[in-house]
Parts: sequence; structure tokens; C-alpha cells
Amino acid sequence: MNSVISYYTTSFGELWEKSLFDLVRDAIKGVLKESSLENNQIDAVFFGNMLGGVVDNTVLSSGHIAEILGTTIPIYRTEGACASGGLAFNLADQYLSTNPDKTVLVVGAEKMTDVSVEDVTKGLGAAASIDEQEAGLTFPGLYGMIAHVYMQKYGYAEEHLAAISVKNHDHGTLNDKAQFRKKVTLEQVLASPYVASPLKMLDSSPISDGAAALVLSNKQSLTKKKNTVSILSSATAADTVSLAKRKQIEQLEATTVAAKKAFKEAKISPKDIQLAEVHDCFSIAEILAMEDMGFWERGSGGNHALNMDTHRDSGNKLIVNSSGGLKSAGHPVGATGIKQLGELYLQLTGQAEKRQISNVHYGLAHNVGGSGGVAVVCILGV
Amino acid sequence: MNSVISYYTTSFGELWEKSLFDLVRDAIKGVLKESSLENNQIDAVFFGNMLGGVVDNTVLSSGHIAEILGTTIPIYRTEGACASGGLAFNLADQYLSTNPDKTVLVVGAEKMTDVSVEDVTKGLGAAASIDEQEAGLTFPGLYGMIAHVYMQKYGYAEEHLAAISVKNHDHGTLNDKAQFRKKVTLEQVLASPYVASPLKMLDSSPISDGAAALVLSNKQSLTKKKNTVSILSSATAADTVSLAKRKQIEQLEATTVAAKKAFKEAKISPKDIQLAEVHDCFSIAEILAMEDMGFWERGSGGNHALNMDTHRDSGNKLIVNSSGGLKSAGHPVGATGIKQLGELYLQLTGQAEKRQISNVHYGLAHNVGGSGGVAVVCILGV
Repeated sequence: MNSVISYYTTSFGELWEKSLFDLVRDAIKGVLKESSLENNQIDAVFFGNMLGGVVDNTVLSSGHIAEILGTTIPIYRTEGACASGGLAFNLADQYLSTNPDKTVLVVGAEKMTDVSVEDVTKGLGAAASIDEQEAGLTFPGLYGMIAHVYMQKYGYAEEHLAAISVKNHDHGTLNDKAQFRKKVTLEQVLASPYVASPLKMLDSSPISDGAAALVLSNKQSLTKKKNTVSILSSATAADTVSLAKRKQIEQLEATTVAAKKAFKEAKISPKDIQLAEVHDCFSIAEILAMEDMGFWERGSGGNHALNMDTHRDSGNKLIVNSSGGLKSAGHPVGATGIKQLGELYLQLTGQAEKRQISNVHYGLAHNVGGSGGVAVVCILGV
Repeated sequence: MNSVISYYTTSFGELWEKSLFDLVRDAIKGVLKESSLENNQIDAVFFGNMLGGVVDNTVLSSGHIAEILGTTIPIYRTEGACASGGLAFNLADQYLSTNPDKTVLVVGAEKMTDVSVEDVTKGLGAAASIDEQEAGLTFPGLYGMIAHVYMQKYGYAEEHLAAISVKNHDHGTLNDKAQFRKKVTLEQVLASPYVASPLKMLDSSPISDGAAALVLSNKQSLTKKKNTVSILSSATAADTVSLAKRKQIEQLEATTVAAKKAFKEAKISPKDIQLAEVHDCFSIAEILAMEDMGFWERGSGGNHALNMDTHRDSGNKLIVNSSGGLKSAGHPVGATGIKQLGELYLQLTGQAEKRQISNVHYGLAHNVGGSGGVAVVCILGV
């Protein structure tokens, strides 16, 4: 059985003193230490990174990582915008399925603060269609349009979105690696300035630096140890890069297709999940994801959000974004998908310390690229 | 058995009227037509591309390709500089090994002429280490240093390198899709201006646009048809991004390691190969590759090159770069690895028309990223 056997993440935030490959080195060292493995016990590396070569002048990460590890093993970089980390995990899972008795590293990293906000916004905007870019649309604008359509269709107000941020900031206060570890109130979210109507600053995930790494293995000697978690499924789907070419604006079909496949492969259904780490790049995105994956009925998401039905103190069975989500924990884009899976790993193995949730047997991670051009859904279990 | 069932490539060259995704669309349409498959018969796509987001503002190619195909299947982009195509093939081969009864597209593409030569040179330079970039080194400079070390160590002159270009240009005259379809003489190569001593303009592969695509399958209904080729192995290895950190300058260890693994998996040895498509980004690179893969003894490469031992008219058993190589066929970097494999496919199935080589049973493709930070070696057979 392909399993996650260890996890390490750097802090997420404005890490001025660290370069992209400083962060990668820290994450690799950290995860190898966690698993008591040496460099030469790793058989391959899968690296998720979006902005290498876009906001800096660094591609061919295989060579950079070979230098860190001092090895000649296969090393792959994959890019699917903000889903780069989830895609790297998906490829690593495939690699293990075809190669018995192997151990691999999955690393996600992003360095976003070394350039101006304008340049990083333009870099992120490269994941929009050419038409959208030429129209001046950035991702807050695209998700703002999605939010308008959703709110209008189902009769919701800005406070329904804002509640997602309140919940995720609450959760983030318990995560020492989170970029923001403070509560925000519904009033504060609503009073924060618009980024792209109806989305406000506090509806939006930040610009972050960070790296996260997992060790996966299918070696019996490692997977039978304490603190390992089974990979029940990992699925990805794609959709048009352009919003204008979608059948529906207020649904992300890539998420729906990937989730269906992931549930089918894992042989469980949404009601079996106790913890979901969901791609809340903007507050609206968490609401859509919950509907798209079948956790909530279509159109009911705004009410669930305002009720804080997935808050860790809700008393309900399903908690969402115990890490603080992208909103509070931060969103170094290539690292996000790995951090989501790492959060599941920590919670499923009882290592989540002060934010530990009880009775977690199945966890789901949901990672999106662009406005839904790609999605990855993975299910882990103990 | 994982098999190549069809191949299509656009012309390589300065294709001013085509965008990156115009080229990708042309390659996908072409290869589907070749194999009489519909869009909905494809189960996944693996896309190799280096400069998306680097010289243009386009990442998240999954979404762009989903738009072309009108599908939600898994679509992966991988980047390993000039080995992006080979890596995409390697991942596709792994995918088929773990997923029975599937058919996948492997596409490689690059659009290099829409920006200034300075910008594309800087973009390509992103595959060098930060130190090398800061020292002002570009890839002609790096390979120039490698060439100096090789020539000095074994006592060769510039004409030994130049002969590689003469041979590959000879071969390219027979390839209608090649960027340059004209012969050059040894004198012309030696008289062309230095790009980075000892490498001259005619030792160097060009800046090119182009896209190439393969259909791979493990479905019996497709692999048993006429004109299919078995994938005997596909292996990749990494090495330090920086030349300064290598044990040897005049050997590419990534090539050696990947080739050893590829021969072992295919259960054959270099003497069994009748056709090799080798990564001749610069003339020196073909010489090193032939030694690194065990075709030629260490230090003998210059003599073999000057003798034109791998020319199609040499009468010898092993022909190298029947397509014209990167030098004459062109080098749209993400497409190159796929074009190499496509050339093997055409030759192995007797579809290479006027450049058909007789009695080809095993073919090898060798694709390199950067100055050797990554290499991919694949072996196909009939």
C-alpha cells in the first residue's frame, strides 16, 4: 500500500532571508529527519512549483534538488499553477504504484515575496487565459465574478463568504507554522477593503513563501511503522483555462470530476470524511468546493458557511481546513497542496498537537489551479 | 506492453503565424488523425514545455490543453529545461505501467521566436545555476567550457566538433520538417563566427518554434495494429545544476546513469542499437553523449566524429541523428525529446520515407536538460 510516512513544512510567511532552494533544502532536511532516512534511501523526487522561471530566473529544479541531495535519482518538476503540489503528489503516487519497494520525496515550494506585488500578481495571472489577461483580469477579479454569480443565483450576501475567513483564521491560531495566527471577526472581514467586488482583502489568501515535503513509500519495512497513513486515492481532472468557455461559472467541474474519481477509488463517500483541507484561495472557493465535492447540496453552501458548520468547535463530524487553510496558514502556491496533505497526515496520526481533532479516520485534500483549469483530490486514511 | 502507436510533428522553424497553443493544437490534431482516434479515446495527457511563463505569460497548460481537447482527463505539464519532452514521455510510460487499458497523448512544444534573442537567451539561461547566470554564462558559454576541457584532455581540434554539424546537416536535407534542409561543409562550419569559443554558430542548434506529439497505449486492440513500436525502457537521472559542482566536466553523469538504467531495463546493450537520436544542442554534446552512453570509448569521440562514423552513408551499423538532430532539424526545446522518439518510431515502422534506414530494430533517444542537470534515455524496439 502506498503510504505517507512523514511530513515537514517550513513556516509560511514573508521569509525574506530564504531563497526558493533554501526553502526546498529546509523542507527536505526536515522531512528526512522526521523519518530518520538518509538521502541515499530516496528513489525519486516529485517537485511542485509554479513560479520558477516566471518571477525569478530559475528552472530545471531537478538539477537544484540533485545538488541538495547529492544524488542522480529521477527528479521531476510539475507545474499546474496553484495545484502544482497536488499534481506532484499524484505523480508520486503513480510512481509508487508501478515501482515496488520504493521511497520517494514529494516537495512543494514557492518564493513569492522577492518581487514586487505587481510582478507576482502578473506571474499568478499567467494561469488565466490570454483573453482574461488581456482584459486586465487577475485572480481576485476572476473569483470575484464567480462569487457574484453564486451569490446572485442563490441569494447570498457578503457575510456568507466572510464567515469562511473567520473560521479559517480561528483554526490558524492553533497552527504555529501559519502565516497569520490571529482571529478576525465577521465585522473585520466585511470592513476590509475590496480587492475585487464582492471579495475583500480578508476574503483572500496572502502572498507567501514556504516549502513543504512528504515522504511516501510502499516498502513494507517503512509502511508498517508507527505514524503512517495509507493513500486511498489521488485523482486529477482538467477543465478549460478560460471561465468564458465553461458550462457553469459557479461550479468547478474539474473539482467535481476529480472528487468523484477519488471517492470511487477510495471506496468511500463524502459522509465518511472527518477532515477536509480545501482550496480556499478566496472565501467563495471553499463554498464552491464543498458543493462540487458533494459535501453540501448545491446552493446550500452560503448557509453552511455562515453557520460555521465545519468549524472545529461546531460539534459536527466534518471539520474543514484545520490548518487554517490558504487564508490563514498562507499560500506559497507550489507548497499548498503538500501542506494540505501534510495536515491530513498529522491529524490522522495524532501528531497535530494543540489543533488535534479527535476520531479522524479519513481525510481529503483538495487543490485547485487557476480558476479551476485543474483540480487534484486525494484521500488518506488510517 | 506499452507501445507508441502514432506520431506527428509540425515543421520546426520560425513559425511567426503560430502561438504556443496553436502549435500544440496542430500536433494533437495531427497525431489523432494519424492514429484514427477521437479526442474522447485519450485517457491522459503529458505535456513537456520549458519556457511557458518564462518568455511569455502562460502557465497552467493543463487548462489550455483541456480546452483544445474538450475534456476533463488528467493533464500534466512537466518542465526539465530542454529535457521537458523526454520527461513527459517518461511519466507517460510510468502512467501506462500502472494503468491497464489506457491510451495517452505525449506532447512537447515550444514557442521561442516571439521574443527578442536576448530574452530567449536569458530564458534558456534560467536552466543554469544562479552563480553561472550571475557570472554572465549562457549555454553556449557553458558548453564552450566543456568543449575546451574535452579537446584539451584528448588533443582534439575544432574540426573534430565541426564534423558533427556537417553530418547532421547532411541528414537534415532528407527531413521535410527540419528547420534547415541544406548541407554545410567542414570549411563553412569552421569559418562561421564564434558564439562561445571553441563553439561557432554552425556548432550550435537554433532558436525554433514547433510541437510534436505521440500517442502511447497499452490497449491490446491498439498495440497489435500495424505500425506500433514497443517501449523497452525509459529512464531519467539528475545531476548538479552547476558545472562547478561536478566531478568531471567532460562527462555528463546524468546521461551515463540514465543510459545504464535504460539498457538494463531493455535487456540490450549499445551494440544492439541501429539508430540513436542524440541531444546535439552543440556539436560537442553529441560526442560526449556517445561516450557517456557507452557507444564510443572515452576519448575516442573526436576521431569517430571526424570519420563521420555514424553518417547514414557510412556503411556502419549505428546511425546517429537521422532526423538531422537538434542542429539541423531545429530545437524547440520542449518538443525536441518527443521529436527524437518520433524519429525512432518512423524509422522502426518503415515510415521515414526518403530518409528511411534499413534494418532498424532498436532505437535510442537521448534528451538533456541544461548542461546535464537532467537526462532522459529511452529505448524503443520492434
